[in-house]
Order: sequence, then structure tokens, then C-alpha cells
Amino acid sequence: MSAGADQGSTKRVYLFGAATTDGDGSMKNLLGGKGANLAEMASLGLPVPPGFTIGTDVCSVYYDNDRQLPESIKEEAIAALNEVARKVGAGFGDKANPLLVSVRSGARASMPGMMDTILNLGLNDETVAGLAERAGDKRFAYDSYRRFIQMYSDVVMGADHGVFEDILENHKNLKGYSLDTDMSADDWQEIVTKYKEAVQEELGKPFPQDIHEQLWGAIAAVFGSWRTPRADTYRKLNGIPEAWGTAVNVQAMVFGNMGDTSATGVAFTRNPATGENAIYGEFLINAQGEDVVAGIRTPQSLTEVARAETGDTNPSLEAAMPVVFKELIEIFTKLENHYSDMQDIEFTIQDGKLWMLQTRIGKRTTKAALKIAVDMVEEGLIKPEQAVMRIEPEALDQLLHPTIDPDAERDVVTTGLPASPGAASGEIVFNSDKAETAKNDGKDVVLVRTETSPEDIHGMHAATGILTARGGMTSHAAVVARGMGRPCVSGAGELRIDYASGTMRVGDRSFKEGDIITIDGATGQVLSGLVKMQQPELSGDFAKIMVWADEARVLRVRANADTPRDAKQARYFGAEGIGLCRTEHMFFDDTRILAMREMICSETEEGRRAALAKILPMQRSDFEELFVTMEGLPVTIRLLDPPLHEFLPHEDKEASAVAQALGIELSVLKQRLADLHEFNPMLGFRGCRLAIRYPEITEMQARAIFEAAIAAAKKTGKPVIPEVMVPLVGFAKEFQMLRKVIVEAAKAVEAETGETLTYQVGTMIELPRACLTADEIAKDAEFFSFGTNDLTQTTLGLSRDDAAPILSSYDQRGIFEVDPFVSIDQAGVGQLVEIGVEKGRKTRPDIKIGICGEHAGDPASVDFCHRTGLAYVSASPYRVPVARLSAAQAAIREKGGTV
Amino acid sequence: MSAGADQGSTKRVYLFGAATTDGDGSMKNLLGGKGANLAEMASLGLPVPPGFTIGTDVCSVYYDNDRQLPESIKEEAIAALNEVARKVGAGFGDKANPLLVSVRSGARASMPGMMDTILNLGLNDETVAGLAERAGDKRFAYDSYRRFIQMYSDVVMGADHGVFEDILENHKNLKGYSLDTDMSADDWQEIVTKYKEAVQEELGKPFPQDIHEQLWGAIAAVFGSWRTPRADTYRKLNGIPEAWGTAVNVQAMVFGNMGDTSATGVAFTRNPATGENAIYGEFLINAQGEDVVAGIRTPQSLTEVARAETGDTNPSLEAAMPVVFKELIEIFTKLENHYSDMQDIEFTIQDGKLWMLQTRIGKRTTKAALKIAVDMVEEGLIKPEQAVMRIEPEALDQLLHPTIDPDAERDVVTTGLPASPGAASGEIVFNSDKAETAKNDGKDVVLVRTETSPEDIHGMHAATGILTARGGMTSHAAVVARGMGRPCVSGAGELRIDYASGTMRVGDRSFKEGDIITIDGATGQVLSGLVKMQQPELSGDFAKIMVWADEARVLRVRANADTPRDAKQARYFGAEGIGLCRTEHMFFDDTRILAMREMICSETEEGRRAALAKILPMQRSDFEELFVTMEGLPVTIRLLDPPLHEFLPHEDKEASAVAQALGIELSVLKQRLADLHEFNPMLGFRGCRLAIRYPEITEMQARAIFEAAIAAAKKTGKPVIPEVMVPLVGFAKEFQMLRKVIVEAAKAVEAETGETLTYQVGTMIELPRACLTADEIAKDAEFFSFGTNDLTQTTLGLSRDDAAPILSSYDQRGIFEVDPFVSIDQAGVGQLVEIGVEKGRKTRPDIKIGICGEHAGDPASVDFCHRTGLAYVSASPYRVPVARLSAAQAAIREKGGTV
Repeated sequence: MSAGADQGSTKRVYLFGAATTDGDGSMKNLLGGKGANLAEMASLGLPVPPGFTIGTDVCSVYYDNDRQLPESIKEEAIAALNEVARKVGAGFGDKANPLLVSVRSGARASMPGMMDTILNLGLNDETVAGLAERAGDKRFAYDSYRRFIQMYSDVVMGADHGVFEDILENHKNLKGYSLDTDMSADDWQEIVTKYKEAVQEELGKPFPQDIHEQLWGAIAAVFGSWRTPRADTYRKLNGIPEAWGTAVNVQAMVFGNMGDTSATGVAFTRNPATGENAIYGEFLINAQGEDVVAGIRTPQSLTEVARAETGDTNPSLEAAMPVVFKELIEIFTKLENHYSDMQDIEFTIQDGKLWMLQTRIGKRTTKAALKIAVDMVEEGLIKPEQAVMRIEPEALDQLLHPTIDPDAERDVVTTGLPASPGAASGEIVFNSDKAETAKNDGKDVVLVRTETSPEDIHGMHAATGILTARGGMTSHAAVVARGMGRPCVSGAGELRIDYASGTMRVGDRSFKEGDIITIDGATGQVLSGLVKMQQPELSGDFAKIMVWADEARVLRVRANADTPRDAKQARYFGAEGIGLCRTEHMFFDDTRILAMREMICSETEEGRRAALAKILPMQRSDFEELFVTMEGLPVTIRLLDPPLHEFLPHEDKEASAVAQALGIELSVLKQRLADLHEFNPMLGFRGCRLAIRYPEITEMQARAIFEAAIAAAKKTGKPVIPEVMVPLVGFAKEFQMLRKVIVEAAKAVEAETGETLTYQVGTMIELPRACLTADEIAKDAEFFSFGTNDLTQTTLGLSRDDAAPILSSYDQRGIFEVDPFVSIDQAGVGQLVEIGVEKGRKTRPDIKIGICGEHAGDPASVDFCHRTGLAYVSASPYRVPVARLSAAQAAIREKGGTV
Repeated sequence: MSAGADQGSTKRVYLFGAATTDGDGSMKNLLGGKGANLAEMASLGLPVPPGFTIGTDVCSVYYDNDRQLPESIKEEAIAALNEVARKVGAGFGDKANPLLVSVRSGARASMPGMMDTILNLGLNDETVAGLAERAGDKRFAYDSYRRFIQMYSDVVMGADHGVFEDILENHKNLKGYSLDTDMSADDWQEIVTKYKEAVQEELGKPFPQDIHEQLWGAIAAVFGSWRTPRADTYRKLNGIPEAWGTAVNVQAMVFGNMGDTSATGVAFTRNPATGENAIYGEFLINAQGEDVVAGIRTPQSLTEVARAETGDTNPSLEAAMPVVFKELIEIFTKLENHYSDMQDIEFTIQDGKLWMLQTRIGKRTTKAALKIAVDMVEEGLIKPEQAVMRIEPEALDQLLHPTIDPDAERDVVTTGLPASPGAASGEIVFNSDKAETAKNDGKDVVLVRTETSPEDIHGMHAATGILTARGGMTSHAAVVARGMGRPCVSGAGELRIDYASGTMRVGDRSFKEGDIITIDGATGQVLSGLVKMQQPELSGDFAKIMVWADEARVLRVRANADTPRDAKQARYFGAEGIGLCRTEHMFFDDTRILAMREMICSETEEGRRAALAKILPMQRSDFEELFVTMEGLPVTIRLLDPPLHEFLPHEDKEASAVAQALGIELSVLKQRLADLHEFNPMLGFRGCRLAIRYPEITEMQARAIFEAAIAAAKKTGKPVIPEVMVPLVGFAKEFQMLRKVIVEAAKAVEAETGETLTYQVGTMIELPRACLTADEIAKDAEFFSFGTNDLTQTTLGLSRDDAAPILSSYDQRGIFEVDPFVSIDQAGVGQLVEIGVEKGRKTRPDIKIGICGEHAGDPASVDFCHRTGLAYVSASPYRVPVARLSAAQAAIREKGGTV
């Protein structure tokens, strides 16, 4: 490797594939991605068309020098060009055997389509004849020349390319041609003449016949394209510094369209769809690169096996050009071994000689990624940790759900947020009771609501999918749906739902209850009718990767699960405990909600206690079943959290029925509802504030937990160590008070049963103040669990239920790089988490700290949790595999492991 | 000063007023407040009944020694007691001339009524006779003895004091007495016998005749009273550490009731009501201390002047005991000079001899405090800085408003929060339009609402006072009322308002529109009917103190003012600029609100621009008037902040009218309202989020500000340097974008007018994330203004509009030491302010930082702002004097200045 330029030498131009190759793949910063890649292939001894790269550092020299290339650099380029010509055996400007080159940009980071490219440079009125002669194809030569004039005049000289299109169109009309292929050699020659006249006319100067003038013009144009408004915008959006600059690659042209001994093709070294270890690719004889993808001619298979499979009658490359094929296969193996990964390759065969134009890591499906990674470990090509790093954690999620068949027709009605992955079809229902009834009648239904509330839990369970008009990625609907593994599209803002008439409208399309729709939780699309699905398939490769991931990771992974069903699902996906069991979901069952409402409407402690006594046995049995399911794994139970009004009926009709059932006046119920009304319920009477006011609720819940722990331990023979979690603590005193209530309950249960309980009492850290005073809170709290959903809401001052329109407006303007409710806002919320961890550990060095927000299933957030030294993350059951893999990658990344 | 005990010597007992005085006033930690005070007076050579103090350090010795007093300490106490006896010329237990002592507690901090006291200790069946003999008053002696038995048996021995009351009651019934004064010497002697029998009967042991046993018992009881549940609770509530312990004071008894040469009295060295420099006090001949305050006999004046003023026929002390009077006056002067402050004094004259029992700083009215402080400076007794420290800033607020006559009868209907000071009477009106009409008809009205919204501004202006059923100390009603200087009671939760019938109910009392009520913003009381008021009177003393305060303070004080009227008020109270001009209040005028609504309902940018163009000239003239009023003083203008739905009509009837006026369908208006509905508007689409989505609003406002600045500068000849403030910034990018819009507007105005503008663009720091990323934001922001109202809401996760019931529940349980919306939560919110200041200054060392929340008018918060190094605080106009004084005190305190 030549590091000369970095050390202040005057080297500016780097040869590849000629007498020497000056660079290699590691020199991306200096040579750009393309230049480094070409140098790397050349260094490996592969047949790369020779050329040279002008380094990225010249880009600023160019701008500083008044957009002129300094003479010294021109001299260096000419010397390099001579080397290239010598290698090719042609001459730049040689009338008999002209060297043609391409001039291309190549920045450190890929900026597809942003900058300029010139092909066939070196053609003029004289060399075009030489090319025709040598290629034995005048039509090819003049077609190439007219393309060059068109491209160069547009890109370098600034001509309006419409002019050239008009000339060609007129010519074809005149001749009665309809296709370019109708054009003869003479036609193209005539076009060349007209093009040159047009240049003279429009720009007031002739098209340059001086091939050196052509070269400097093209190089300057590529450097110049670094600072177009379009490129500026792209860089700004992608965080690419202007100072990086672009390199310029000048490379000898090779042609796959020089007769039947020429060809061009693309290949993957393994099957990118299935991961199978078999060459996968196509080629065309006597064609240029763009012809393979253009679809005018049908490309042929590379291997005989593939040809047989497709039943193609055209010969494979293996059969047509066996020598070249053999060389190509050897190169494939060499490249895969060299890069230790599946390659995406472009090649051209000119006159029987193979040229490698490009190799890069190939894109692949998740399924293929798993298979390739596992196979490569088994082939000894990579280590398990590398295999773990090869899988995109986010992509795993799709594997776990049914998805829409990629070939299916999509009649998109509207698009919302992709709130919970997977796709689902079913009849529209507009309320949860109907969803349940329909489900019992054996129907698939999609529950459509303006928004959902805890009262909709049973309907969400019954539905195959959930669609809401309001709410963001972490709205109630989204969070609950992800937890249940139900596909969900939320915040479809164009949706107008009319519950009264049982219809939903989008623009002028209208749907009524019972109409079938499909929602796609991967894209947020709402589709009309039934759409074909693909079922998930968890291959053995998945399991193997997860085993390696579990070996690598340090973070424990728990699940957020409220029911034994969720808990089972979570264990199936590898959860090592429950990090968040929300108890409020347990209150919505028909018999329970009445007792709950009785409690809320009681005006005395006695009344509340009487109602709570009815709830106690039900809570206890819930907890017992959960503990039994988890067989001694840790279970964190959060005490009642939501505002009480969520448990009361809000509509008049239901309110009357409830008042009657409770045996109270409707006015009393309405007054209570009015008393509980809040402007900002998120910042209101909820969390531990309920328990401070009504400690008897905590007392009942703690008793239910402890009694259940004793019963479950007897059943399973595995001791249960419940973790009782107090929500929304902001002041150490709040926690102290409630801890006392919980400890008293434990003592009472111990006294009554004669058993000894082991348990922990800790708190959610979900308010900025809790982070800032974590040292005080940790005096009494045995564990912290960061509730990053609420912490994000308060730190950013942004309600997740109201965020959708704001997020979309911010997204358009590039204010948020990523939705802060999806990936933890490390610069803001992350600082508070770090403060909380540091202060908590200062007081209590061994305090157990985890996170149980939605972020626990997001790879970047998991990486943050790992770096911040948390003990565990607790994610929705369906996100557990994502969290496991992310945790492994975080650990490997920290050790310096890469792909 | 003896610091022996601190240095580990074994000294535990400290004499005062005897052969030596071991302590002084600085030794409060060791001797407790009372002991140190007595020692100080004795050291000054004043006639203090001799005694000794057992140090606070013995308290823990007592507890550690199994609640026993160690022998070594008893020995030390006996030695001290002998010194006392020698000084008094009596003997402890001497049958002929017995020494009687009091035993009292005395902690470092005052804990009034929390701990025990024993008087007349040293009496038994023998010494009582000696006392009778020496006093020449057998009735006095036996009355003293029976009081001692009663007190001692109750406090030390744990007898039920009801028993003694029953005995006395029975005796009086038997004898046909109705008053204690009917009791003769023999009656008391009989009672003594019965009391002793009762002790034997109830406790199974005799009342101790051994006077040493009495002494140790009393001392132990005083130490023991440090840890009663009652004292524990008091300490917890007041943050007094248990480890401090209490001292015990044993002091020779003196008697003012030993005949006509004896007397007892209380005095202030100046008039505590007016501050006048004249002795103010009362005394009674032949009486005990409690008789002066008991009101059975009418006390006499101390001075002849006072006697003449009251027309009293009884002689003054000056006339009755001229020698003692002269001595007393000399002592008063000595004490005032010594303490440099007005003293509250207790004294007793026993047999012609003056004894000083107590001196302490006297409580006084605010008016008196101002006069005394100013007088003392003029007398050369204290320095101006000391005078400044003498005034309670909070108390100033009351001076600025009418208050309820302290002698007036109060018919309290209910009590809410004292949301804005002052009192007001008027007819009840339930809506703002009616308030305005009634005001125009010359009526005084109290606006009564469940809660207020920005639409009520005109009604609040028209009303003399505001009463709401909901909302805390920083609810909309409270904040706006304080800003306007209107008295307000908010969150009167018992109030049930029925707008439809035009009535309000509290329990079974009902009031209808037009009924007169009075609200007291100092106490939160709602009173029925018209109540007599006192008008405020700003004396010259007030002005003098404020001049001294302004000289001492470092913090600048600005005001939050939205209108020229507010601005004038603010300047009158000494504001040095406007720190927060909220522009939204400017949109509620009849003509403006329509244009605003048109803007909100427009679906295109063009439509919005057209509506904004109508608002522009009105905004400009508002700003111009404001700038003219402020004559070049700095003015910070906050861009539009509240959620847009606040500008739309929420009731159907009004909505129809508005739709008609706007020329749109009612359904369009309703749809817009539905679109703007939010679950948590506080965390929603408001602040800079509005401006990011609709930059044209910012463009219009910035233009109005800049055009007004140029116009006002021309009018006043004083350059206007507007400070444009972007609200609710959480991300640096938000600020960058809007800064650009504002700068563009300035450039446009400069280009159009040919004038050069000087201005600053800064931001509210009111979200935790803004504090945490202040370094990023400060890259572009030229000033920060901490919006601690919103910052408190988000940091604590507590909506101020919903906080009232939570705060009251927390207050009862001692979770909040002070309402965090009134005084800044230094441990939580304060940390974020410090982080924001530190990070902001790191990026931009000269950044101007202030605070504009409601906290800016709270003394403790102002002190915090001073210590945190802010440049200014911006308070409601009526709080400006409080802020000025608080800022001065903070600066003096920091320099180590004390009272």
C-alpha cells in the first residue's frame, strides 16, 4: 500500500491494472470507493481494464485553484495514461488503434447518480475511423462517437440535451425508422455531423477534436459535479462532509459488443434470494452492460445447471465460452475468499478476453443472509461472530410474521405508519366487541378505530390486524399490537371513520363494515381486498445464528408480557425473563372492570377496599399462572399505572348501564368522570401518584403478587423471586412511601403463610427528575427499569399519541434523523439515561438496571444500552430475537469486531 | 466564649447569670436557642434569673445510656445548682428559703409547644411552707405547689391529667365556686392533699418529696420529650435532624405575683404594627406572665405617653415604678443596640427587683419592617445592606394590592389556592363577554369559571377578580391574573359551576349570577358578600429600601408583559426591560381572532399568507407601542406558542357563527378542530413546532417586530434592539431553521427601509432536551431564557393545569416541601438549568441567560438564579419589586452578609 499522499508527498495519481497498481481496497478515503475497489481487484491479479485514479485530495486543489487542474497534475495524469496505453497496446489519439477511456467520479461514500460520468472519451473524427477499422464495425464506432458527443456536450460543455434528442428524432422520422436499431452506420455518421453542427450553433464553439482537451474537460467536469446543488443536498441529507471531495477514475474502455467473441454479464457468487451456494447470474453475447438489464434481449444463464433449470434453449456461458467461464469461476472463488462474503460482480468479455469491471458485497434477502452466514461458518470462511454481524437485526422481525407476497397486486387505499410488522387480511369491524363476536364465528377481522384504548384489548386480541387513524409508532395501538404480535398500521391520517354509520372513507373511496381489507405492517399500506400472503418459516439457520448471538452477547434479554400467552410466546423467542408485566391489562375483563369501577367510584377507603377485595383473587391467579409459565425466571411486575378515567365508560349509553350495575346514580358516575378529566393525562394523576393517594391499591397488588409467588413456587418447585416495580417515580419520597406499603404486605403474607419471601422492590425511571435524582431514589430502590417511552415524551416534550403529524413534518425537513420513539434519542434521552445509571450506581453499586421501553427492540438502542452498561433490555415478545441479535452485535462491535 | 465541649473536654453543664456565665449567643448548637439567649443576656450584664444549661450533646448521651443521666453529669449539675442557689441567696430544699427552679427544653431550632416544661420544681410538703412564709402568701404557695404536682405528674410520671381536673372541678362544685379565684389558701392545700392521693392511687407510688429525685426526673423527661412521635413528626416536616438533640435549661424561678412591688410584662422596643420608634408594651402588677395575655385583667401601659393615648386611668409603669422603669428602658436600648434589631421582651419584677426572662427579634408587619429598617439605617444602627436583608420579599407583594380589613367579618364559602394576591369584591359573572358588558356598565364583577383559556383574556381584564374551580398556582388563570395584577383564587375544587343555569354551588350553598362575592388572593378564601378592604399605600420607606436593594443586586430584573399597559405597570415597579412578551394574547381581539381563524382553517400556504397579511399591521402596531413604552429598554418577544385549537371556537353555537364569518362550511371548521385535537396538548403541536410547519407565521411576526422597531426608534429617538425568542426548542436544527426565517425577514425589512437593524435571536429553554443539548443550540442562539414553568412540567411529568389534586395529596404527605410551580425544584429542575447554563456557556461564553417562568417572582428561586449566574429574571409586573429585593438579598447572602 502506498500511503505517500497521506504523508505529504506530491503523488496525486494512482495507477491500477497497468505496470503497477498503486492503491488497494483500504484506501477508500483517498481513492474513493470505486478507485479503491478497482485497485484491490488489480492487486489480486485480476484482469481489470487498466486506468488511474486522481485522488480525492485533488478535488479541493481544483476548487482552490479557481476550478483549474494544475499543470503538475496534468503531467502526472499524462504519464499514467501512457502506462495505460502501453498495457492495452493502443494509443491515446492513435488513428489506427485508439485508446478510449471512461472518466468517472468516485467519492468515499456512495452517492448514486449524483455525479457525472463520461464514456468513450478519446474519439474524434480521426480516431472514430480507426475504431471502426479495428472493431470491424463502423456502425458500432459511429454510434459510440455520437453517444460520446451527446454525453460530453451535455455534461462538460453544458449544451441542452434536448437538442440532440430532436436531431435523432427528426432523422428517424425522415427515414421512417421507429427504433434506434433501424439506424445504419451511415445514419449514425450523418447524426455525428449534425450533432457537431448543433454544438457549434448552440455553444458558439466546435466540439473539441483535441483528445487532451476532451480529457481535461471531463476531469474538471467530474470535480465540478461535486458541488452541484443536487449533490450538496444529497450530502446534507446523508451527513457527508463537503471536504471529503471526490476522486476521478480514468479507465480504459472495454467492449462486450465487438462481435460473437465478446459478451457482458452480471453475477452473484451465491443465490441472493435463497442463499444457496451456487453461481447466480446472466450474460449476453455481443452486448453492452446496460443491455443485460434493459430487457430488450433475454439474457442467458451462466451455468449449465441453471440453464437446464430454466429450460433455456440458448447456450450457457459455461457451454459457449468454456475457457473464459473457467477463469470466471476461479475469480469468483478468489473474490469470495478474499472478501469472505458473497460478491455482486460485473464483467465484460472483449474479443475472448475477460475483464472484471466491479465487485462488491452483494445484497440479499434475510433468509439468504442467514443461510450464507451459517454456510460460510461451516465452510470455515468466517467465524461465528462474523456471521452474527452479517445479519441485519431489523430484518429478523419480518421472518417472524406472515408477509404480503411480493408478486401480489396491491390496491393501495392509503398509507399510515408501519406500527407492528406482518400483514393481515380480514373483514372490517369498528368495535372490539364485534371483533370478538366475529372471531368466535370463525371470521378473520381487521379492527379499525380512530384510536385504541385499554378497553380495546380483547378486540385487538380477537383481530388479525389493527388499523388506526391516529397515533404514532408508540401509540397504544402500536405498542399493544407489537406486544401481541398483531400486524398494525397506525396513524393513517387520511382515514375518516364514522362509527355511527359503520363506514370508513379515504378521499372518495368508502368501505363499510364487513368489507375485506389487508394491512401491511411492513410498509404501513392499507390495501383493498384479500391479498396473497407468504407464511413465515424459521429455518435451522436462524436457530444457529441465535445460538452464536447468545454466546456473544452480555446484555440479558427479557420480554414485556402481561399474560401467560405472551409469556409463552416470549419464552419461545428466547426471553430470559419478564422485564415488564403491566397489571392494568388485567382489569379489563368483564367481571373485573366492574369491581375496578366500583373502586374508582367509592368515596371512602372502606368502599375501595371492599372493591379491591373482589379483584384480589383474580389478580393473584393471573400472577400465579404467569409465575408458573416462567418457571423461576425473573418477573418484574409494574403496579397500576394508567389514569383511572381509562377504566370508566366515556359514552352516555354505556355509562347508564355501568351506573345501574354499580347501583349508583348516573350523575355520581358522571361527576367522577368529570373530576378525573385532565388536560394532559400523560402528565397527570397516574403511576405512583394513584398509589400515594390510594395506598390500598398497592397493598392489594403486592399481596396478590406475594401470595401468587408462594403458590407458584409450590407448583413448579422453582422459587419465585418477584420484582415489584413502582411506576412514574419522580421523588425519592414517593418511592420510600410505597416501598413501605409493599414491604408491609410481604410481612403480612409471610406471617399468614409461615413462608419466607424473597423479592425486590424497584422503580421505573421514566421522568427526567428520576434520572437527575437517581442517587436519592437508589437509596431504597433495588432495581431501576428505564421506561424510555415516557422518558422520551417528557424529555422531548412530545406526546407519543399526538406526535404523528409533528414527526412527519419534521421528517420532511430532516430535523429528526430517526423517529425518537423508535430509536432512542441518544443525544437527549440518552444523556438522562447515562446520568441515571451513573447516579444510581454511585449510591448502590450493584443495582440492577434495565430498560423496558419500546426501544428495547431497536438495534441502535440496544447498542446504546450495551455501551451504557445496562444489565438487560426488555422488549415485546416478537422483538426478542431482534434484541438478542442486536445485543450480540453490540458486544462484538465493542470488542472491535467488524464484518 | 467557652468552646470546651466542642474540643472534647468533659464540660456538660453551662452556668448563666450566676458566679460566671459560660456561654453566649453564638453557642446555639450546643446550648439550644433558649440557653444561648439567656447566656447572651447574662453576658451583657443584664439581670437574668441565674441558672444553667445542660448541653444538647448530653441528649444523645442520655439515650445511649439507656435513658439515664450519668452520675458525672448529675454531679456537674448539682455543683451548678449550688452556684445558682448561692447567687439567689436561697437553698434548694431549704425549708425556710427554698430555691425553686424551672426545667425547660431548648433545641437548636425553635420547636414551639413540641417539648415539655416544668415550673416551680423544688416544692414539697416542707418547702411549700417556707415559700408561703417568705412570700407572705399561703394561697400563692399552695396554688404553686398544686400546679407543680399536676404538671410534674402529667409530664414526668405519666399520670392522666384528667384526674386532676376532675378533683378540682368536684371541689369547686362542692364548695359552690365557679372560678379558680374563688379558691382560698386552704382550698388549695386540700387540693394538694387530694392530688397526692390521686398520684398514689393511679400510679401506685407517692408523689416524690425528694427534690433531687424531682430534678432528675424533670431533666430526663425533657430529654425524653425529644423523641415523642409528635416531636418526630415535627422534625421530619421541618427537616430538623434527630441527632441535634435538645438542651435542658434549669433556672431559678422569679415571681411577679408576690405583692404590689412585683409585676410582670411584655414589650416591643418599637411599635411592631407601624414601626414607630416608641416602646410598645403592657404590664400587670402582682401577676404572673400568663395573666398579661390571658385577658382576665386589663394590662397597663408601660409609658406615660402610651397611657395618655389610650386614656387609661391606671398608672403606667413609668409612673408606678420609676426606678425599675428607668432600668428597663436602659436595657431596651442596650438590647436593641446589641442585636441591632427591634426586640420582643419578657420581664418580671419580683419584690422591686427587675428580672429579664426573654429577648428575641420581634415579629412585625411589612409596613413596620420597612420603617424600622430604614430608621435603623438613618440612626446608624445598621447598614443599608442589613436593612435590605430585614425585609421578607414575599411580604412586599401584599403591599401592592388592596387587602381584606383584618377586622372584617368573614363568611367563608370555600377555599381554593391563593393564586394571585390582593382581594376583590364584585357581582358573579360566568362568562367573559358578560364581564366586559358589566364592566362597561360600571359594575365590579368577579369572573367565575371552571377554568379560563386565552379566550377569556378580555373578561379577566374587565373583572376585578377571578375565581376558578380548577387549575393550580400556575394554571392559565393564575399566571394571567398575576401578570395583570388581578386578585385570583384558583382550583377551588368544591365549587360546582353550572353555566347553563348561571349558578355556582358549594355543598348546599348556592349563588347565582349577580350575587356579590369577595375573593381573598392572600388566603385563597371565597367569601359571601361585600367585605371591607384596606387600600395599599407605598411609603417612602419602600422606595428607600428598593434603592438600596438595586444597589446591592447583580441580577437584572425584567417583567413579563404583553401589552403597553402591562409594560407601564412593570416600569412603575422598576422593571429594567421585558423578558417575555407573549404574542398570542395579541390575537384574541375581535377583529384579529377572525384573521387568525382564517389562517388556521386555510389549506394552502397562499391562504395562510393572505390571512397573516391582515394580522401583520395589527401586530406591528402592538409592538411599536410596546417599544415606545419601553424607550429603548430590552424587549424579548416570544413567537407564537400555544396550540392552534386554542384560537378556534369549541362550542357548537359559536362555531356556526365563526364558520359563517369565515365563509366556510361548519363541517370544515369542525374537521379542522378534530384534526387539531390532542390527547396532551401540552406535549403537542405548539411552540416552534407550529413555525416549522408554517414558517410564514414566523415570517409575519418577525417582520412586524422589525418594522415596529424601526418606527419606534424614530419616534423615541432611542434605538430598539429587539430580542426575538423561539419557543419550545428541543433540537438545534429547529432553532437553526427558524433563525434563518427570522434573519431573512430582517434582511427584507432592511432592504425595504434602507435602515440597519440590530437584534438578537434566541430561544426559550423549556424542555429537558434543550438543557441537555444547550451546547448545540448555543451555536446559533444569542440568548437563552429558561421557561421554568414548562421545564417543571416536563421534568416532573406533571401538568400544571392538572396538578392541583396531586399537589394537595402530596402536600398532606410531605412529599413536596414546596409547590414546585411556585418555587423552583432545585434538586431536579435546578440541575437541568445548571446543565443548560454550563453547556450554553461552553459554546458561547458571553451568551445572555435569563429566566422568564413564574419562578422569577419567587425569592428562593431568584436566589437560585443568582447563584447559578444568570443575567436576569423576568417576573410578572406585580412581582418585580419582590424579584428586585430577592435578587439583592441573594447577592448580599452570597457575600456572606447576614441579618
